[in-house]
Parts: sequence; C-alpha cells; structure tokens
Amino acid sequence: MKKIFITGITGSIGIQTLDVVRTLKNFEIVGGSIYSNWEKLKKIIDEFHLKYVAVVKDGEFPKEYNGCKVLVGKRSVERAIELSSPDITIVATSGASGIKHTIQAIKSSKRIGLANKESIVCGGNLVLDLAKKFNTEIIPVDSEHSAIYQLLLGEKEVEKIILTASGGALRDYPVEKLKAVKPSEVLKHPNWNMGKRITVDSATMLNKGLEIIEAYYLFKTKNIEAFINRNSHIHSMVKFKDGVIKMHFGTPTMKIPIAYSLTYPERIYKFDIPNLFDEKIEFEKIDFQRYTLIKTAYEILGNQKLHIAYNAADEVFVELFLNEKISFLEINKGISETLSKIEKENIKISSFEDVFKIDELSRNIAKELGGNY
Amino acid sequence: MKKIFITGITGSIGIQTLDVVRTLKNFEIVGGSIYSNWEKLKKIIDEFHLKYVAVVKDGEFPKEYNGCKVLVGKRSVERAIELSSPDITIVATSGASGIKHTIQAIKSSKRIGLANKESIVCGGNLVLDLAKKFNTEIIPVDSEHSAIYQLLLGEKEVEKIILTASGGALRDYPVEKLKAVKPSEVLKHPNWNMGKRITVDSATMLNKGLEIIEAYYLFKTKNIEAFINRNSHIHSMVKFKDGVIKMHFGTPTMKIPIAYSLTYPERIYKFDIPNLFDEKIEFEKIDFQRYTLIKTAYEILGNQKLHIAYNAADEVFVELFLNEKISFLEINKGISETLSKIEKENIKISSFEDVFKIDELSRNIAKELGGNY
Repeated sequence: MKKIFITGITGSIGIQTLDVVRTLKNFEIVGGSIYSNWEKLKKIIDEFHLKYVAVVKDGEFPKEYNGCKVLVGKRSVERAIELSSPDITIVATSGASGIKHTIQAIKSSKRIGLANKESIVCGGNLVLDLAKKFNTEIIPVDSEHSAIYQLLLGEKEVEKIILTASGGALRDYPVEKLKAVKPSEVLKHPNWNMGKRITVDSATMLNKGLEIIEAYYLFKTKNIEAFINRNSHIHSMVKFKDGVIKMHFGTPTMKIPIAYSLTYPERIYKFDIPNLFDEKIEFEKIDFQRYTLIKTAYEILGNQKLHIAYNAADEVFVELFLNEKISFLEINKGISETLSKIEKENIKISSFEDVFKIDELSRNIAKELGGNY
Repeated sequence: MKKIFITGITGSIGIQTLDVVRTLKNFEIVGGSIYSNWEKLKKIIDEFHLKYVAVVKDGEFPKEYNGCKVLVGKRSVERAIELSSPDITIVATSGASGIKHTIQAIKSSKRIGLANKESIVCGGNLVLDLAKKFNTEIIPVDSEHSAIYQLLLGEKEVEKIILTASGGALRDYPVEKLKAVKPSEVLKHPNWNMGKRITVDSATMLNKGLEIIEAYYLFKTKNIEAFINRNSHIHSMVKFKDGVIKMHFGTPTMKIPIAYSLTYPERIYKFDIPNLFDEKIEFEKIDFQRYTLIKTAYEILGNQKLHIAYNAADEVFVELFLNEKISFLEINKGISETLSKIEKENIKISSFEDVFKIDELSRNIAKELGGNY
C-alpha cells in the first residue's frame, strides 16, 4: 500500500485526487490538510479513514474525529505530514503557503506530486536542491509540466519546450473591450474547470507566465515557447535538436496528471478518450499585445526576486478584480508597477526566509498600489 | 570513433546515411555492400576510405580498390560485415536477402539500424531472439517504427500503437478508376521520396500492412491502428491506458530516423523544422474498400507463414505492375490468391531455413498466378 497525504484536500485538485484513488488498488489516503472547510473534511475522514489531518485556520475543532488526529493552526500542516510519513504527498495547497508544505513534504515523503505553482515559481532551485538532498522525487501535477515530464522520459537533452495555452475566456474579445470586462465573463473558461484565480490567470495568461518560469526551473532551459491550442488537447510539446517534436495529446482533465504523479513510472489509472480524431489540431501564435503578462514573464525569466513578485502581485490584483475593486486591465498594470518597485529593492535570495520576505513585501506594495486605482 | 557498415550503401537509405554521417563527428563508415552499382560504390570508397565492400552480383571486380578489400558474390555481404566488425550496421538491403544480412549483423555488430522490413516481417521472433542472444540492439529506421521507439522510451506498457499513413499517390482517385491506373501515376508520392516498390506499396497501403506486422513483433502488441495523416507530419502515435497519446511530429525525411539509429540515446544530428505550426494536423480513417491489403494484414496478423507470403507476393506483383504486365488492382488480387494457396501448405517455421523456403515458395506461386492474369 502506498500512503498518500494531500494538502488542500478539499480543493479542486484534492477532490480529484480522491476520485483517482477511489479507482486504484494499493493506494490509501493517510492524511490531508484544509484551510477551513471542516464539514467537507469530515466526510473525507469518514470515507478514507485518514489518520492525521490539519486545519490551518484557528478555531474550535475536536482533537480527534473518527479515529483521526486533528491538528490545528499555522504549523499544523507540516506536523501532520511529518506524523503521516507518507510515500507520496500531493501538494495542492493554493498560494505561497504551499512552499512550506512542499519543504516539509520533501523531508517527510519519498515523492511529491506538485500542484502548487509557487513552490517552484518562488522557491526555484532552493526547492529543487532540497529535494535532491533528501532524494525526494518531484513529479509535476500541472497538466503542461506533467506532459513535458512524460515526453522527456528517456531523452538526454531537450532543445525547446513548447507550452500550449487555451487562450482563456477572453481570447476572442476585442482588445479595446478588455477594459470593461466583468469577473463573471472571465470566469467562463472554455476547456478547464478550475479555481477562480487560475481561471482569471488563464484569461490574462499570467498562468502561462508562471508555467514558463516553472518549466525554466524544472527542465533547466530558457528556450521555452508558448502557443495557443484552443481545445487544450495538446498539453505541451518538446522539441529536440534533430527536429523531432513530441506532443502530448488527450482529454483536458487534471485526473490524468494527478494519477500519473501517483503511479509513475506505471500508468495504472484508466481513462478513456472520446473520438478526438474527428478534431483538427491547430496552433496559434500568442498576441503579446493582448497578453502582455506573457511578455513580462520572458523579460523576468531567471530573476527569482521578480518571479516571486510577479506571482504575489497577481494574487493581490486578481482578488481586487474579483471583488470589482479594479478593472481587468489593471491586473496587468498593477503587476507591472509592482515589478518596477521590487526591482529596486536590494535583496539577495539565499534562503527560504528571503523568499517569504520578498513575497510579503511584494504583496504589501501591490496592495498599496491597488488601493489607489 | 563508431564504425558503421551499410548494406545497400548506394540505395536511397544508404546515400542518406552517408549524408547524415558527413555532418557527424565520431562516426566513420568502414564498409558497405551493393548489388551491382560499382561506379557509385567507387566514389563512396574514395570519399569515406572504406575498408571492406561487398558486391553481390558476380562479375569482374578488382580484389582491392583504393585500399579497400572488395568481396564478390552471394555470401560476400555477410563476410564483409564480419571482417569489418562494425559498432553499427545499417541494414538497408531491399528485399528478403536483407534477412541474411541482419542475421550476420546481429552476430558481428553491437547495434543494427534496421531499414530492411523483411527482417522483422518475415524473420519475426527468430530475428529478435537472435538479437537478444547476442545482446545486439535493434533500432528501427523506418520512420514510423523509429517514432514509436522514441515515444515508448521510459514507458512500461503501451495500450495501442497508432501508425500514420499518407494514403499514397492515389488517395484521391475514385475507386472505380484504380483499375486503369498507370505506374507513372502511382510513382508520384505526395510526401516521401523513396524507392519504386515502396512508393507503389504506399499507394496500395501494403507498406502499412507490413508496418503493422513489424510493429506487432517489435512492440509486442496486436492492438495496432492506422490513420491517414495527409502531410506525413505525424510519424506515429502511442496510446496508454490512462488516455494519454504521444505523437511524433516533424518533417518527413528519412535522415532523422537514420541519425537516431546511429546516435541513440543521444540526438546529435541537427535538423531544422520549417514553420509547421502554420499547418493543421488532421487524421482520417482508412477506407478498407480502397485499401484492401490493410484489411488483409489484420487478418493474417500473428501468422508468420502468411506474413512471409504477403511480402513475397507483393514483391512479385509490384514488379509485374511496374512492367505493365498486370493492372494496379491485380496486385491486391494476386496477393490475396497467393495467401490462399500458402495457407494450405503445411509448413512449420522453426528456423531461418523455413523462412526462406516459404519465401521462395510464395514467389513461385505468385509468379505462376501473375503469368496467367
């Protein structure tokens, strides 16, 4: 039996991981963490007989529920991972706090299925070096990076990584109308069913910017392109020196990369493909005028300080946009202005503490800027 | 320096192998064989300083030319491979005599770049078992099988192999016009520049039938599908249990799979891709009414005796067609009738001798049948 711990167990990735595990033999969920959704967690404890759970938000919770230890508070997730000593930790925490969960998971488990973008985007080589030190495998769960990981099996050297993007909900909106677009319009993603922030990030394509940064660390190259593939059937591509391109094709569902991260190097999870051969596979170039945040990602690529600010500022401005405090285009503006300010700060990154410091500083700058829009 | 021997060195694959090697460091051609094209071979000896060459057709040749030993006659190829003791043998012999060259190459070299279809189609597990015994790698050079080989790197189990086909020169001809089609029309292949027989085999899709049989042996599955991809940019696909399909995309040139067979697991050969993203990738189902020989391949799959007859009869009937002795559709008819006759022969295959016996018998039957059309 492989023991699995899931951080963010009641979120979209967490729930889909449970769906996958229900179909697999020889895998059991031993623990999980939530921010605050205790009612949902109780049902999961009942079904999967968890041994340790963590609730980040302080509050009144029992110390034990249905044979499961309940830990509460800021450091509870790390403690629950450590006590569970899982074979695999699925880090599906959203936001920068996921970095701390990844650090603990590296120390306490043999493999991480990594769905938290910040761990690599902000943590960069600090995270990868720690994983190396503890001999812990990191298998990306993001559909694009999972695809690339799969395509690079057995290959010695990649020449170029080609990410694909749907273009998000606003891909066909005239650029001049973007200013007045409403959150409800942005949240209608054409292919993927995801959380709110990432759906907005699809529309601004900041998510693709984060993925470019992530790919840079994970696959050790700056040669990364991105194309639009409208139906999201090509999940990414890799190109080699000899002109060969390998493409990863399938249904857009997170269950496949989740299952892959659990069962690698095997593929045990069964998923059927609809008749995809009736469709055409087409790629479009990305319009940098429309998706300015992609251009920004290329400009800051390799500068860890700015990676952190890019992500932190986005989280702040997306929230302001979802609360209708700023316009859609002010997300781009805000991130850009935050980056300019952070660039002037003289901070070297040599530890995780530095990462968290820059993250916090960026958020504060972003909030201040956003308050004035 | 890696030493290379090329059988069929003046043929299409042979010449393209030389083109590839001209661009590579650390590879040298030490020998090669021809059927009879001595003038072309002399130029290759001059340029590459070969050490041993073999000329199959009896005739007047010097015993040595420009420092290179010249062996002549039926068994000369095997002897030249043995004397060269190459690291890699590219078996690019056309036809069933390639099987003997493959057998020798297995014994005398560490790796075979296999471009001779008959070695696997007819030799089947006899060849693969021999390679296992001698610990000799077999890397397919066929673009489809090379693609599949590359796509399966690092994978544990494949669910389905999906071969792609251009559909050949006659893919848009009305079925009722196929009867009167001339060799010159058949020889206009839309994408690939190849030898005559294989270009005809593309039009009948017998080549895809042979590839299905080859894939069956090489990748140990009967779950093989074929689709038409008109521009031959997808060279094949593999599908896994979890619904993931990996596709192999690139320019249709034999140089890439040739180079891969030489440099695997590295990709050292440099080849640029034109702007392929401007194109659409589309697949079409294969019409079994038009391409009856594909249907035949599925029917005989796993029956080695009939694999041999399928290939041998095709060689006979394609030659008759190219010499305008029979009509295009009589290729299908002839193969089908040969198979019926061979099916009744009670021959077990337990050695290469049996393979050659069935090959010869099939040819004789085919010639007799063809003489009466």
